[in-house]
Amino acid sequence: MAKQDRAIRTRQTILSAAAKVFEKHGYQAATITEILAEAGVTKGALYFHFQSKEELAQGVLGEQDQRLTVSDRACKTQEIVDIIMLHAHRLQTDPMVRAGVRLSLDQQAHDLDRSGPFLNWGEVMTGLLEKAQAQGELLPHILPRETSDVLVGSFAGVQAMSQALSNYQDLALRVCSLLRHLLPNVVLASVLASVDLSPTRGVTVFTELAEDLDSEVGVPVG
Amino acid sequence: MAKQDRAIRTRQTILSAAAKVFEKHGYQAATITEILAEAGVTKGALYFHFQSKEELAQGVLGEQDQRLTVSDRACKTQEIVDIIMLHAHRLQTDPMVRAGVRLSLDQQAHDLDRSGPFLNWGEVMTGLLEKAQAQGELLPHILPRETSDVLVGSFAGVQAMSQALSNYQDLALRVCSLLRHLLPNVVLASVLASVDLSPTRGVTVFTELAEDLDSEVGVPVG
Repeated sequence: MAKQDRAIRTRQTILSAAAKVFEKHGYQAATITEILAEAGVTKGALYFHFQSKEELAQGVLGEQDQRLTVSDRACKTQEIVDIIMLHAHRLQTDPMVRAGVRLSLDQQAHDLDRSGPFLNWGEVMTGLLEKAQAQGELLPHILPRETSDVLVGSFAGVQAMSQALSNYQDLALRVCSLLRHLLPNVVLASVLASVDLSPTRGVTVFTELAEDLDSEVGVPVG
Repeated sequence: MAKQDRAIRTRQTILSAAAKVFEKHGYQAATITEILAEAGVTKGALYFHFQSKEELAQGVLGEQDQRLTVSDRACKTQEIVDIIMLHAHRLQTDPMVRAGVRLSLDQQAHDLDRSGPFLNWGEVMTGLLEKAQAQGELLPHILPRETSDVLVGSFAGVQAMSQALSNYQDLALRVCSLLRHLLPNVVLASVLASVDLSPTRGVTVFTELAEDLDSEVGVPVG
């Protein structure tokens, strides 16, 4: 394994350990000592990648942003739905995504800047809504930035409610319900008619992405 | 002061102290010792009202439910808007409401049942939506229970986003924006046309309630 690959792998190991510890204790109570023990790496290795608990948390928060893409869709409304439903699916299945979302809503993390995920999600959604608007998919009164904020904020709450009431068992249903309430006032009915808004959409998109990755395996790197 | 009044006042003092401590440290890290010190009451007085930290937290969570009413409106859609905007205003101004909302979203409070506020808000909203439906205010496809869940969940997230990005400075604007996205797909346009959805609505309703309370002062009780 090349030196760089090893470094990337170590960084990932540390981030996964940090995600686990932050999810268990919250930001305030988590300690670097416990993250070290969980990761099974040396102190030197950890401090090579992250200088502080805050940097570890920002690393976990930042991992969400790496996962905000799906393949390009002709219909930008479908692409918005797909990113949201995929994120809901990952919340149920990927500890890193779950830890990131929890950190961004951790109101006890006083000295941690938690605005990153909200702002990044906001930018991704604003960009897609602007493309949808340019293609004539949106109703004339929509301001992409405002609608993007509504989508991001309301998603954050619906996932928190699903976590509190069913430990994410009903997440896909709740997110669909949210989108079916919001989108008819954002997107033209003629566009919405051909958008897949079913609760299984997240799994479908996830499978599609996994197949794309599989087909790339075997290509030698570096 | 009658004995009963004193007990009610002591209970309120303890709950206010608990709210302050939970808001500062989160549920997990908060201790009864600190709540005692903050309240300035005896251990006996505290345990007379609350047997455990969990009971204290449920007390704070429950205080939200006492504040879910405004005076009856002829238009039930306006009543729904008013309760939501009043709650937003109280989140900015009332430490007890803020502590309750934070506790209900405290994902580190593993052994605390946080479903209460979601379920109670859900019931209040469902009841009002059913009345609105019976009066013919709603679009024909609306299921009050489902729409209620969307309103409650999305509000929770929009307030969390406002807290993370502006420490609640932009809360009224964000909540209005949410309602202007959701309600046109829930309520008849002809009804919505005469609903006050302005960002200052929360303050207006709060002032109205305070005046109602003032006019009751002076009536001797008990």
